[in-house]
Amino acid sequence: MGIKTNTLLDEYHPLFYPRSIAVVGASDNPFKLGFHSLAALKAAGFEGEAYAVNPRSGGEIQGVRAFASIGELPAGIDLYVYAVPEDKVVEAVRQSARNGGRAGVIFAGGFRETGRRGEARQRELIEAAGPMKLIGPNCIGVLNTKSRLNATFASPLGYLPAGDVSVVSQSGGVGSCIMSALTDELVHVSKFISIGNRANVEFADMVEYLSFDPDTRVTCLFIEGLDDAREFLERARETVSRKPVIVFNSGYTERSSKTALSHTGSAASSEAVYRGAFSQAGILRADSVSQLVAVAKALAMGGELAGNGVFLSTHTAGPAILITDSCERAGVRFPPLSPETAEEIRQFLPPYSVPVNPLDMFAFAWTDTSLYLKAADAALAQDDIHCAVAVFQSGLGSGLEFPAREYAEIGRRHEKPVFLCLTAPALFAGEMARAQAEGVITYNRAEKTASALVALTRRLETRRRAPGSAR
Amino acid sequence: MGIKTNTLLDEYHPLFYPRSIAVVGASDNPFKLGFHSLAALKAAGFEGEAYAVNPRSGGEIQGVRAFASIGELPAGIDLYVYAVPEDKVVEAVRQSARNGGRAGVIFAGGFRETGRRGEARQRELIEAAGPMKLIGPNCIGVLNTKSRLNATFASPLGYLPAGDVSVVSQSGGVGSCIMSALTDELVHVSKFISIGNRANVEFADMVEYLSFDPDTRVTCLFIEGLDDAREFLERARETVSRKPVIVFNSGYTERSSKTALSHTGSAASSEAVYRGAFSQAGILRADSVSQLVAVAKALAMGGELAGNGVFLSTHTAGPAILITDSCERAGVRFPPLSPETAEEIRQFLPPYSVPVNPLDMFAFAWTDTSLYLKAADAALAQDDIHCAVAVFQSGLGSGLEFPAREYAEIGRRHEKPVFLCLTAPALFAGEMARAQAEGVITYNRAEKTASALVALTRRLETRRRAPGSAR
Repeated sequence: MGIKTNTLLDEYHPLFYPRSIAVVGASDNPFKLGFHSLAALKAAGFEGEAYAVNPRSGGEIQGVRAFASIGELPAGIDLYVYAVPEDKVVEAVRQSARNGGRAGVIFAGGFRETGRRGEARQRELIEAAGPMKLIGPNCIGVLNTKSRLNATFASPLGYLPAGDVSVVSQSGGVGSCIMSALTDELVHVSKFISIGNRANVEFADMVEYLSFDPDTRVTCLFIEGLDDAREFLERARETVSRKPVIVFNSGYTERSSKTALSHTGSAASSEAVYRGAFSQAGILRADSVSQLVAVAKALAMGGELAGNGVFLSTHTAGPAILITDSCERAGVRFPPLSPETAEEIRQFLPPYSVPVNPLDMFAFAWTDTSLYLKAADAALAQDDIHCAVAVFQSGLGSGLEFPAREYAEIGRRHEKPVFLCLTAPALFAGEMARAQAEGVITYNRAEKTASALVALTRRLETRRRAPGSAR
Repeated sequence: MGIKTNTLLDEYHPLFYPRSIAVVGASDNPFKLGFHSLAALKAAGFEGEAYAVNPRSGGEIQGVRAFASIGELPAGIDLYVYAVPEDKVVEAVRQSARNGGRAGVIFAGGFRETGRRGEARQRELIEAAGPMKLIGPNCIGVLNTKSRLNATFASPLGYLPAGDVSVVSQSGGVGSCIMSALTDELVHVSKFISIGNRANVEFADMVEYLSFDPDTRVTCLFIEGLDDAREFLERARETVSRKPVIVFNSGYTERSSKTALSHTGSAASSEAVYRGAFSQAGILRADSVSQLVAVAKALAMGGELAGNGVFLSTHTAGPAILITDSCERAGVRFPPLSPETAEEIRQFLPPYSVPVNPLDMFAFAWTDTSLYLKAADAALAQDDIHCAVAVFQSGLGSGLEFPAREYAEIGRRHEKPVFLCLTAPALFAGEMARAQAEGVITYNRAEKTASALVALTRRLETRRRAPGSAR
């Protein structure tokens, strides 16, 4: 396994950590992708050698040294970004491969997704690339926050802070939605790969690579269709004990299948088939972008559970019921409190509150938040309880705030993750940010909290089943 | 109907538009709900007569004239807010009813939701109230943005701008989640009623009242369980042709039913039974808070459709497929373009783009957004197309922005609603706000856009079926 690691990390090093990059089709004209692509690269603060290629250019484009042809570039450039129309792509790739290019990103559509002629063009492309690793065609590129690489044409992506979640998306558009949703959850990205038509880099390659990547803690996938589902599942299955993988796959009606076909060139298979296969391979499934990201957040923040027992406390029954209901349907347990735990909790409970799990402490706990701390401390001491979840309605700046620091400390003392469902509008994301900075896994909606707990329980099963698993 | 209107509007006038309010249990101690309640009332800028009642108080609480007992208050006060413990509620209500009080809001729990003793107390309460209309007990109160009434204990609710969506929630906590989600969608609330244990004001009363309320355009409900589902459905059915009603009802596992029982005192019935009954009554259903609010937004912004034909255009296939897929499963149609429309669109289409519905214009339309305008203008002229949906990845402040003003104008010219799925993080809510201010119904996620379109199509069926419907 050690050898495979090194091989993979080496193979994709030029793609994710390039020392030199050439933008083919770089431009000074803001109506061209070649403009946005070079601008994005520069804005992200890439520190290696950058080159521009444009036959009509003088010696400089956007302040970057420009060449009239690929042949004139220095040999052995790590990464080529192709911002040229589809009919120029194959020849450009052929020239860069000859010139020792090691990896490439191709934005243009007009390949396999457009029918027979496009398929032929994609075959030519693969042949022209030789050993070069190609991302795309028909994609929005690659981002690596750790190496300040923004090889997309969207400058704003380069301003994202570095994080632990990597995203591989067949659709650039859905990939962008995932990035937006991660930003909303205050979770940060490590690598983003808009994988498009997959000329010679497949989902399985990326999942395998990311499972060894020290900068990635969780891998998120958006899959429309797989050409060789069996191979993907086999290779993915081998990685999930090392690192969690979550997939959101869109299910298609007959009509949208046709649209998908003309999208990234994959026949869309039936949703149900994929659903079962993913689960069997130990891949976690999400039904929406929002669910995908909620689960990724829990895993990125160290939320893995040692068992499926959850303690929940609240001052407001409604949202707590939404959580417990979804959880119990999916096999998450809320173990009864032991007589000792119940007695300990009874000592400080407000009137009418009964020491059970889930625990409702009514509005008393909203004005006296120390009740949450006492309850979590008592419950987490119980062996069959593996995490705590607190439900709290944000005081919306009125001065009432959940005691996240002390709550996180209790979690660390018991070595069990702690969750907070802090219902609040996005306007109060600062409150979520403070709680997360303390190490509390925080959601602003009941349904996200439930999705995370359910996925962590599924993940637990996968880890238990995995041969050679540490637990 | 005219007479019923006046009766209902009159009956609940003291509750929603009180000229005078007394806070019983008002306090200067911030650990008491009576403090937060009076503070919330004042902060919202209530302009009528306010009184405080507290036996231990001097002549003033928080600057409001205070009385030692209800008997000393002026007779005929419109609204009483009871911020006293459950064992003081019945007597307080009896005294205020005697003193001519017309409506009341009761925060305290400890009634029907707590078992037999609580049930007896709730019966006493109903008897003590006589003709007074009671909201609660076991609730967080009532908000009316139009009359600057914040009869909850949460000051921040009073700062919400006035809007057209009214919310009736059995759970105060879920009600708060709905308010947060509305805020996130930049949709504003008219009335919020945390209806709690429903001593003598039922869901049906509020749905009926709101259907005549000129300040309400859409009614949102969160229902855990109904005591008399049949009556509710009959009365609701009568209102939905006047005004749309959307319900999110939580479905329960056996265990969470028990929790719900101790929540607002209603036996929770099976989800499936409710699901069918709501649909038959013409009530729109949502499966989550986020869906509820997405649908409410479309209806509040005038999104009602004259038919189920949608034209969709995009520069990015992935999110568009997510939308069309969910829509087609639910019977929303994407009619083929007529030869004339197709020919008109063909004139300006970028390379590889084919003039069909849904229409993919690739990244060309991202840099040249005028393509969206031309496409919508051509498609909306077609008779069997009843609205336009544009999918656009936010330029995230890079200068690329969707031309919302011109798009909205095209919609108005064709007298058909226009939608925008502007995928962006919440950080860029300003962009959504600008588009909405122009009249474009805007969502930041594909799934919300789909939920809205599906609900509008369902709504169409209800309106068609409705006797005496205008359409």
